[in-house]
Amino acid sequence: MVYQLYYWPTIQGRGEFVRLVLEEAGARYRDVARETGRGAGVAALMRFLNGRNTERPPFAPPFLKAGRLIIGQTANILQYLGARHGLAPKDEGGRLWTHELQLTMADFLGEIHDTHHPVAAGLYYEDQKKEARRRAADFLKNRAPKFLGYFEQLLTRSARAEHHLVGARLTYADLSMFQIMTGLNYAFPRAMAKAARKYRRLFALRGRVQERPRLAAYLASPRRIPFNDEGIFRHYAELDAD
Amino acid sequence: MVYQLYYWPTIQGRGEFVRLVLEEAGARYRDVARETGRGAGVAALMRFLNGRNTERPPFAPPFLKAGRLIIGQTANILQYLGARHGLAPKDEGGRLWTHELQLTMADFLGEIHDTHHPVAAGLYYEDQKKEARRRAADFLKNRAPKFLGYFEQLLTRSARAEHHLVGARLTYADLSMFQIMTGLNYAFPRAMAKAARKYRRLFALRGRVQERPRLAAYLASPRRIPFNDEGIFRHYAELDAD
Repeated sequence: MVYQLYYWPTIQGRGEFVRLVLEEAGARYRDVARETGRGAGVAALMRFLNGRNTERPPFAPPFLKAGRLIIGQTANILQYLGARHGLAPKDEGGRLWTHELQLTMADFLGEIHDTHHPVAAGLYYEDQKKEARRRAADFLKNRAPKFLGYFEQLLTRSARAEHHLVGARLTYADLSMFQIMTGLNYAFPRAMAKAARKYRRLFALRGRVQERPRLAAYLASPRRIPFNDEGIFRHYAELDAD
Repeated sequence: MVYQLYYWPTIQGRGEFVRLVLEEAGARYRDVARETGRGAGVAALMRFLNGRNTERPPFAPPFLKAGRLIIGQTANILQYLGARHGLAPKDEGGRLWTHELQLTMADFLGEIHDTHHPVAAGLYYEDQKKEARRRAADFLKNRAPKFLGYFEQLLTRSARAEHHLVGARLTYADLSMFQIMTGLNYAFPRAMAKAARKYRRLFALRGRVQERPRLAAYLASPRRIPFNDEGIFRHYAELDAD
């Protein structure tokens, strides 16, 4: 089966969490909105959102076409792919726990996004800069340490766990954690440099993930969209630590 | 099995979505932090958050103890309970679709919360009142119609679907939609009164859910915590429509 991923073509965004799983799994997929021609591009994506192509229209990208299924919501897609590609535990407890971690990362990601858009996603950053400074300061002081401290602590619980968030093997939660650490380093380089010792297991996890052969090949390829000022992770120097 | 729900004892909050499923299922459960005595109360909840009582510590309430499993993240708990109590489809496509809708409601709920806390969850409303007015205005103008319009449209797709969000039978997504509609009516009574005709299928769904015998009994019982100014849905007249 060739998966079809639908996501905005110019940003990593939430779609990147799906791309990382597909790449690590070595799965065959099309990144439809990034292709040109008939049945491709953003127009193809919009047709699903308008509900004309499916009985179960997604609310927003990313969504994945897997055979006859259309699956929306990032964590939902990862749960589906993880089970099929050996990137999640097989037992019920492990499966639920991995998904729980992913949903906590989704909450974290929402807060990361809102550092630059605390008033309205539909307004420009420039129209909410003052509010963004307040929100980013609180994020760096209170919220980021709460989330990162939680995940760091999970990695300290056992020698076995030290290498991955869930048990002995890589799961989609590790791939997502890699993306969050990489994105935070891009968005808040000063704050993250200061925090390197505090979260050394998370930094180490990030390093191990990006050295995996398939991931390293992907990250070096043109398929990896560079960070920019349109995505979730944005670098605005005035929002970073002093 | 007697489930143990752990959630803050004085608010509906995210825990309410779990309570509604347990009540509609007729499941036996303890609402641990609302009980007094040994091994109960908020202290019992905190012990899990501190990670001492479990290998898999939740990030935040609500979490559910189901036998030996500890399950965190609202949507994850609902996915688990839905499968066990006939409140979700059995086929993979239907199961994923129900969860997708729940995750979209979780996104909606985060935005509802942030209308009164756009700067920092840790600050008082009074300290972010100005920002809250901007955010709530954008929410009522753009975001609420986007989410509510999406769900209303799902209910128009077929005569069968008109009665529930997913196919012919009640699912946990309907219970969550009931809670969101009820909460929005409490928080934004003027805006919701204006929107009643626009979302008449959602209002009708809410009415049908609250008349279900088990739900009606629950809502009339002291187990249902009233809305107040501490939860996700808060009524601040200055944030409502004119």
